Amino acid sequence: MAFDFPLRDLYAGEIADPVGDLFLALNTPGLVSFAGGMPDAALFDAEPLRAAFDHVLAHDGRRALQYGTSEGDPGLRAVAAARVSRHVPTTVDQIQITSGSQEAIYLTALVLLNPGDVILVEEPTYLAAVQAFALVGARMVGVPTDDGGVLPDALAAAIAEHRPRAVYLVPSYQNPTGRTMPPERRRAVAEVLLRTGVALVEDDPYGELGFDGPTPAPIAALDGMAERTLLLNSLSKVMAPGVRLGWVRGQGRVLKALTVAKGAVTMQSPALNQLAVAHYLTHHDLDAHIDAVRVRYRERRDAMAAGLRDVLPSGAEVTRPEGGMFCWVRLGGGIDTRALLATAVRHGVAFAPGWSFFANDPDLSTMRLSFVTNPPETIAEGLRRLAAALAEQAVAYPVGVA
Amino acid sequence: MAFDFPLRDLYAGEIADPVGDLFLALNTPGLVSFAGGMPDAALFDAEPLRAAFDHVLAHDGRRALQYGTSEGDPGLRAVAAARVSRHVPTTVDQIQITSGSQEAIYLTALVLLNPGDVILVEEPTYLAAVQAFALVGARMVGVPTDDGGVLPDALAAAIAEHRPRAVYLVPSYQNPTGRTMPPERRRAVAEVLLRTGVALVEDDPYGELGFDGPTPAPIAALDGMAERTLLLNSLSKVMAPGVRLGWVRGQGRVLKALTVAKGAVTMQSPALNQLAVAHYLTHHDLDAHIDAVRVRYRERRDAMAAGLRDVLPSGAEVTRPEGGMFCWVRLGGGIDTRALLATAVRHGVAFAPGWSFFANDPDLSTMRLSFVTNPPETIAEGLRRLAAALAEQAVAYPVGVA
Repeated sequence: MAFDFPLRDLYAGEIADPVGDLFLALNTPGLVSFAGGMPDAALFDAEPLRAAFDHVLAHDGRRALQYGTSEGDPGLRAVAAARVSRHVPTTVDQIQITSGSQEAIYLTALVLLNPGDVILVEEPTYLAAVQAFALVGARMVGVPTDDGGVLPDALAAAIAEHRPRAVYLVPSYQNPTGRTMPPERRRAVAEVLLRTGVALVEDDPYGELGFDGPTPAPIAALDGMAERTLLLNSLSKVMAPGVRLGWVRGQGRVLKALTVAKGAVTMQSPALNQLAVAHYLTHHDLDAHIDAVRVRYRERRDAMAAGLRDVLPSGAEVTRPEGGMFCWVRLGGGIDTRALLATAVRHGVAFAPGWSFFANDPDLSTMRLSFVTNPPETIAEGLRRLAAALAEQAVAYPVGVA
Repeated sequence: MAFDFPLRDLYAGEIADPVGDLFLALNTPGLVSFAGGMPDAALFDAEPLRAAFDHVLAHDGRRALQYGTSEGDPGLRAVAAARVSRHVPTTVDQIQITSGSQEAIYLTALVLLNPGDVILVEEPTYLAAVQAFALVGARMVGVPTDDGGVLPDALAAAIAEHRPRAVYLVPSYQNPTGRTMPPERRRAVAEVLLRTGVALVEDDPYGELGFDGPTPAPIAALDGMAERTLLLNSLSKVMAPGVRLGWVRGQGRVLKALTVAKGAVTMQSPALNQLAVAHYLTHHDLDAHIDAVRVRYRERRDAMAAGLRDVLPSGAEVTRPEGGMFCWVRLGGGIDTRALLATAVRHGVAFAPGWSFFANDPDLSTMRLSFVTNPPETIAEGLRRLAAALAEQAVAYPVGVA
């Protein structure tokens, strides 16, 4: 009889892998994937990044290949502090380097939350944050949202009812909905947090990817909010995910706790990657690169928004994001997008089913589609395949489509 | 009044940072550090590693800079499986890539242990494992050891008393003691685990660094043990820590749980690092490199062992490791090595005080000294400084020293 390896209670049933499912396309040649939040690799600033790694290994190889410190390389922390300071005055010692914003979310949960503690999240929210909060044994409570993000009155009510330790928000071009919280909503949310004394975890990986005008400043930039916010940034969406680097802006004891926890979780992020990226950010104009990427992503947003209107059944709702990477669709009509995904993959297209983006009561008819991974013609092909999958699932179609 | 950021109960008091303290030397020019388990950067196989990163960024840059999968790059998993198969037959799908063995230890704790569950450890044990187990809320129980490692009868008694979920062992050139468990002791330990049905977490970052003959095979290689063991390896000690790569050998549901947990903690290890290291391991002879490093480390072990005999007060005990990186000293006589460290740093030398290597009752008079970071002449200088520090702490000296 095979040994029954002991697992914690969390894994008593079937072990779901919603994060892994997003990367399905990596193992499936020919699939058009709208599933992962994967930047288009063709747009990476590859040659300068190659030069940066080579420069560091040639001139600073011993340091690059050695252990570093858990808080991160001082050079990269300085560059990060300068970037964050565009919105929130930040010193080098207020930056903790992380392995992408995923580790930032996880470490944040790990240092804030005892098992059973409540964290409030948007409904829907980022699925890998849901996974991270579940792993530390937290209790997630979803707060209702509209097109402007979380509703301040609902937030205040949830705080009164659940006494949360913190609120986790993605205010700009949210994952999964693509929605952005306008400035006045940000002020209203900050007012609630200031009044109730609840801490904020502000996840901002997409803020630099606005298509239709300037992105509102982070909530952390509002009066009184810096000291009660952990502000999370990532280089994955604006530079390259494959280096796995991001950072947290915080201060005081909570930042010290993050550093100590980081030491026990991954010891430190790779010195090589940190030195090379610091070199790249010092000698190249990432902003100009982002400007160029943004133009391409806007075309793709337009292509997907226009295409979805033709493909979706009447009654379906879709967000029209002003930045970021995602459209969010609600099909309604009792459709389960998990079943639809299986059909879609047979037709050669993938998306992220919506169920795993909900803290509490999932709307099974929802799905997230990334528009950044593929050029417009591939988006069009993927949507044709999606239409075929929807037809096979016997979804009612508007006249003139399928 | 400053905002009091909420932290989990673990951080209610002063936030100690024993892992961070090991890397003190990185910020202190001129310090001779025996503190961290830092390989000598002068011995890194730097030029071939540089070539491997450049090759991958030049020929496979889009994949290297993109997201990968949480289980790891198939090429690196294949190389890892081949290396592990030298001892334990292993297929590619039995390998989970991690960001060094620190993440492997942490993820292992995360998937095995509910808060309050017991894990047995050697007394003393690896300090960053203690940190990891504490972070998941586990209860650690230390099992007595002798020069051959954990005592089988004591292990059986602890299992009967504490009903642990797993046992964490570092059988080869243990951190912090440098001790190695002989083959017959490994068989006796396996017999206890097979009889009691307790799972094993076998941490083996040093097994390839034997100086005085072949290293005994891992416990996982013994009859019946593979399926009930998670076997952890790291490239940090034999190649370079700065790439942050290691792996876990496991199978079945526990491996699936590790992959899913990894997705929520760091999403995945950097694709770039994985592809480059897989390229390096495929095209270069790591074993030959390790052979060369081992010769140098043996000289250093000899230098430190000889030097310590002259420096330590009579009554002090010191291990004589047959491999790995560390000597372990017990000064005795009521000395607190935390106070001694402060004195030592003023004299320009650092070590790791022993208190943080104990799960339960620390012996405050212990300390760990790494002999691999520095060449013999620097070791000699560091030991002179340590002697001065000991003299200042008014330790009784043998005639002829100080």
